[in-house]
Amino acid sequence: MRVKAASICGTDLHIYGWDRWSQGRIRPPVTLGHEFCGVVERAGEKVAAVMAGDFVSAEMHINCGHCHQCRLGEAHICQNLRIIGIDEDGAFAEFVKIPAANIWRLDPAIPEHYAAILDPLGNAVHTVLAGAIAGQTVLVTGCGPIGLMAIAVAKACGSSTVFATETNEHRRAMAKKMGTDVILNPAAENAVARILAETGGTGVDVLLEMSGNPTAIQQGFKALRAGGRASLLGIPTESVPLDLVNDVIFKGATVQGIYGRRMFQTWVQMTALLKAGRLNLDPLFGERAALEKFEEAFARLQGGLAGKILLYPNGLPR
Amino acid sequence: MRVKAASICGTDLHIYGWDRWSQGRIRPPVTLGHEFCGVVERAGEKVAAVMAGDFVSAEMHINCGHCHQCRLGEAHICQNLRIIGIDEDGAFAEFVKIPAANIWRLDPAIPEHYAAILDPLGNAVHTVLAGAIAGQTVLVTGCGPIGLMAIAVAKACGSSTVFATETNEHRRAMAKKMGTDVILNPAAENAVARILAETGGTGVDVLLEMSGNPTAIQQGFKALRAGGRASLLGIPTESVPLDLVNDVIFKGATVQGIYGRRMFQTWVQMTALLKAGRLNLDPLFGERAALEKFEEAFARLQGGLAGKILLYPNGLPR
Amino acid sequence: MRVKAASICGTDLHIYGWDRWSQGRIRPPVTLGHEFCGVVERAGEKVAAVMAGDFVSAEMHINCGHCHQCRLGEAHICQNLRIIGIDEDGAFAEFVKIPAANIWRLDPAIPEHYAAILDPLGNAVHTVLAGAIAGQTVLVTGCGPIGLMAIAVAKACGSSTVFATETNEHRRAMAKKMGTDVILNPAAENAVARILAETGGTGVDVLLEMSGNPTAIQQGFKALRAGGRASLLGIPTESVPLDLVNDVIFKGATVQGIYGRRMFQTWVQMTALLKAGRLNLDPLFGERAALEKFEEAFARLQGGLAGKILLYPNGLPR
Amino acid sequence: MRVKAASICGTDLHIYGWDRWSQGRIRPPVTLGHEFCGVVERAGEKVAAVMAGDFVSAEMHINCGHCHQCRLGEAHICQNLRIIGIDEDGAFAEFVKIPAANIWRLDPAIPEHYAAILDPLGNAVHTVLAGAIAGQTVLVTGCGPIGLMAIAVAKACGSSTVFATETNEHRRAMAKKMGTDVILNPAAENAVARILAETGGTGVDVLLEMSGNPTAIQQGFKALRAGGRASLLGIPTESVPLDLVNDVIFKGATVQGIYGRRMFQTWVQMTALLKAGRLNLDPLFGERAALEKFEEAFARLQGGLAGKILLYPNGLPR
Repeated sequence: MRVKAASICGTDLHIYGWDRWSQGRIRPPVTLGHEFCGVVERAGEKVAAVMAGDFVSAEMHINCGHCHQCRLGEAHICQNLRIIGIDEDGAFAEFVKIPAANIWRLDPAIPEHYAAILDPLGNAVHTVLAGAIAGQTVLVTGCGPIGLMAIAVAKACGSSTVFATETNEHRRAMAKKMGTDVILNPAAENAVARILAETGGTGVDVLLEMSGNPTAIQQGFKALRAGGRASLLGIPTESVPLDLVNDVIFKGATVQGIYGRRMFQTWVQMTALLKAGRLNLDPLFGERAALEKFEEAFARLQGGLAGKILLYPNGLPR
Repeated sequence: MRVKAASICGTDLHIYGWDRWSQGRIRPPVTLGHEFCGVVERAGEKVAAVMAGDFVSAEMHINCGHCHQCRLGEAHICQNLRIIGIDEDGAFAEFVKIPAANIWRLDPAIPEHYAAILDPLGNAVHTVLAGAIAGQTVLVTGCGPIGLMAIAVAKACGSSTVFATETNEHRRAMAKKMGTDVILNPAAENAVARILAETGGTGVDVLLEMSGNPTAIQQGFKALRAGGRASLLGIPTESVPLDLVNDVIFKGATVQGIYGRRMFQTWVQMTALLKAGRLNLDPLFGERAALEKFEEAFARLQGGLAGKILLYPNGLPR
Repeated sequence: MRVKAASICGTDLHIYGWDRWSQGRIRPPVTLGHEFCGVVERAGEKVAAVMAGDFVSAEMHINCGHCHQCRLGEAHICQNLRIIGIDEDGAFAEFVKIPAANIWRLDPAIPEHYAAILDPLGNAVHTVLAGAIAGQTVLVTGCGPIGLMAIAVAKACGSSTVFATETNEHRRAMAKKMGTDVILNPAAENAVARILAETGGTGVDVLLEMSGNPTAIQQGFKALRAGGRASLLGIPTESVPLDLVNDVIFKGATVQGIYGRRMFQTWVQMTALLKAGRLNLDPLFGERAALEKFEEAFARLQGGLAGKILLYPNGLPR
Repeated sequence: MRVKAASICGTDLHIYGWDRWSQGRIRPPVTLGHEFCGVVERAGEKVAAVMAGDFVSAEMHINCGHCHQCRLGEAHICQNLRIIGIDEDGAFAEFVKIPAANIWRLDPAIPEHYAAILDPLGNAVHTVLAGAIAGQTVLVTGCGPIGLMAIAVAKACGSSTVFATETNEHRRAMAKKMGTDVILNPAAENAVARILAETGGTGVDVLLEMSGNPTAIQQGFKALRAGGRASLLGIPTESVPLDLVNDVIFKGATVQGIYGRRMFQTWVQMTALLKAGRLNLDPLFGERAALEKFEEAFARLQGGLAGKILLYPNGLPR
């Protein structure tokens, strides 16, 4: 693929900062970058589904096809996953090589900058649509890029009241723009009490956990109604003590771990929502930069900038 | 309940016309009317959940509570259902008596005219939300009032392209107002061919059958994709020949019979969508009349008027 | 109801021991006992579903009927539950009074001693059937009475290999009798390693957590396959630290809190399994005693006896 | 693959008889046979999942991998399916060539004759497990080989009472051996009335339609309870008139078209049930013959013999 635009993920920031996880996982030299869109430059001989010139993105998780999970149609949690941009050379480059089965051909109606962030948007769609959402009250804990997208997806899919918690002021402002009904700063007020009050003491139907923060997770569970769904995408860096009796068992709650995107049900859903114009993600996009200016871009994101920065290895769009 | 507004259902037209079904089912004298909203006038001694003055509507199907279906939480298909307005005196009256368990207390934020049509809106919500809808392509066959509501509900809940078929020109115009993306007149064009063309040969994910017309049902199945869902609410008056092999079995399709509204999951979903302002049903409402002018209202509906007419037994709203 | 047989629950032991939870919850004097069978002695005037002489058991959770959960068909997690035998006088008595809606009429084909333990059997059935079970590998952590019943239910419903962990030797022997394929003593061997080895490194499809023991819970999650289901019924007495990233999120696992029995879907399922003779629970039954000998019975259970003891307030069976 | 045993399917009989369907579909010369087991003789260079000597069977439907259904994980209803033994040379031969992704490696614990009929057993498992089965009453209409297998699978997975209808006496006797509780001859008695009587007027929870006979289908729907599931696998040769109002819509029934086997969830379930010894299919097996005696075998099956005949291209088993 000739890369048109690639987007920086939180994971890329971890690797750039060379933290403990990165030191254990990454085997340099490797080209990073797993969120992108581009155009097929050349297709292998036996490839039937795409051809040179096609506008595409791709699922960067490569599954083995024969483990128990692959056989069950759960390829996104394959026992032998390899990730392009982590285990193999990725999209922060002029070109990136991707197996045909992982390519996702795009309708040209989908804008290029949206096409560059389908990987995280897929995380959001996977999380929101992992259970009933129409007519549901929702709490999104954590308004980083994926949390913000989840707010837009939940609203587009018929959720009723959407609550969100976030300590960063800039992100709260963005959450508002994405359609949040009630945005709360848990550092400044008792978010759980507020949510219970607004739901007549019942709590929310759905918790979408996007922060990975242990306190946010615990508060999220306290704000969840009996019989509710908690879908966890955010990644805590340590063990989290849970009040299982009161927050899960007596509540009859359902807790779902969410990883990646379903291959390829999530891509189908996401593309359908985009094509139909149901998602306005414009507030998410920050700056655009030529790939060689990557150091500035990483620095700005490390400084806490919300939103997504797009890198252009083959020239900025006009 | 003191009735504020009551709405005329297609079933009421059948009874008014005293057709064969009515002659077999109705035992006069009985007061008709099963779509309404009102205010609690007086509550029984042991009633805890509502009190005088509450703004309410009601589920008019009374279930027995002890048959197999009631025990399974499927009270809407109870083996011993009785219907207020059919088997017992209904809401085309100043007052109507309803068991406490069937009363649905309403948020005052819900407009009175919307509150009067929760029964058919519940049919629509039940049908649309009987399976996945977010990101799905949808075909609604038949744009009577419930079909029109289903279009609005499907759009509010994240469906992508909504197709609708309808031979009546006035109803096609209303379907457009409710948000239909592609409205087709099956009397004038090959609707199935058109839908297949617009979906790249695949067909729609979801068929919402609202007409009861055998030809529409057959065409609907032809337009359904392999693996799709067909939810049938419309009531055919005769046996319907189905090409089970090609339209259901080889397709791996799922066909659902839809009756009434789930008690009370559908009411919860419907109320949530209304409170959140996700449904614009304004185009549906036709005239309003004092109850004593009912003959005119029935005549207009028998003449093929689309939309809902509201009757007011206790005075027109200001 | 005239009580024929009543069974002692672990909860009754907690109350008998007057632990902290009991001191906070129980308001003496109250007659305990919430597992029983009997015969209707007299029915209220308006009661249509049962009559004097009927052989019955009952769901002892009384739900309010109008909270959010009741409206959603989730009465077992009603916000205003009251429990007969905890909040109101129960079945360790000659007679017990129960609302008609809670009575469960029994086929006389169901043996009396089985009929006396439908409450805990319902817990087991609710847990096992909360997700797919046919063809699934299963781990039951904790072989108290409900764990033992869960083993029998899982086997009857088509599970493939059933693993169980239990430190008590007597209970391990009983687990074997109930049909466990691989019974492990986690105090003596590395149960997780063993289960992973026996499943080709994949882990089990389903975890049924019946112990409430934090270590067992943690080990259960480690033995669960990616994409698996963990259904938690056992009640930990403290907060449990969970490795959410590796055990839930990256695994794409589904965790379910299980409380009580679904009203009345679980009763329908349980009765059907019993009537069809699919469950052999005979190894579970220990002694039988006249009610006035209750002190001995409680003492034996506190001493760690496995199985259920039945008390007879109206005379022992011949 | 070196074929060890291959089994004759009803489809093979249609082709052997060269009926209208066969004339339209088959392009001779082609080797038939799509039910088999064997041993990998040689694996392609890039094949990682199997190797020479592995004991295997295979899914004979080859899916395209890129149509809408393939992307949704519904490969069994791929828009571009090709079938080995129909569209390409099959297993009535010493060797058969099969794409690696379609090979299913078998545990040597699975007996060879069982391994040869995984294709139709998969149809049965797919049908039975397409919805809840534990504790359900079941009606199997039609006791050909797949109907007989479905009876065994339903019992193994916890169904309560299993009814079956069949006009052929020999097949009724086999249905009894497979575990049917109530076997009915619809040519000699009113099967619907009998089933309603035995279920207290309610009807069965699940209809498994295995006959393709229009009358059996109509009767099956009449015997289905409100809210029940009808899973249709049998293939009618003409359009079937259905009383949609009373049998599907007012009943709130769910009707499922079942085709093939889910790739590869059904294979996982089926293998697990077999490995655990939950299915006794021995009564199903009729004669065994060397492949060159195929004419006799086809003649016997055309004569109405129940059960499966196995053909051995590489020598009969000792």
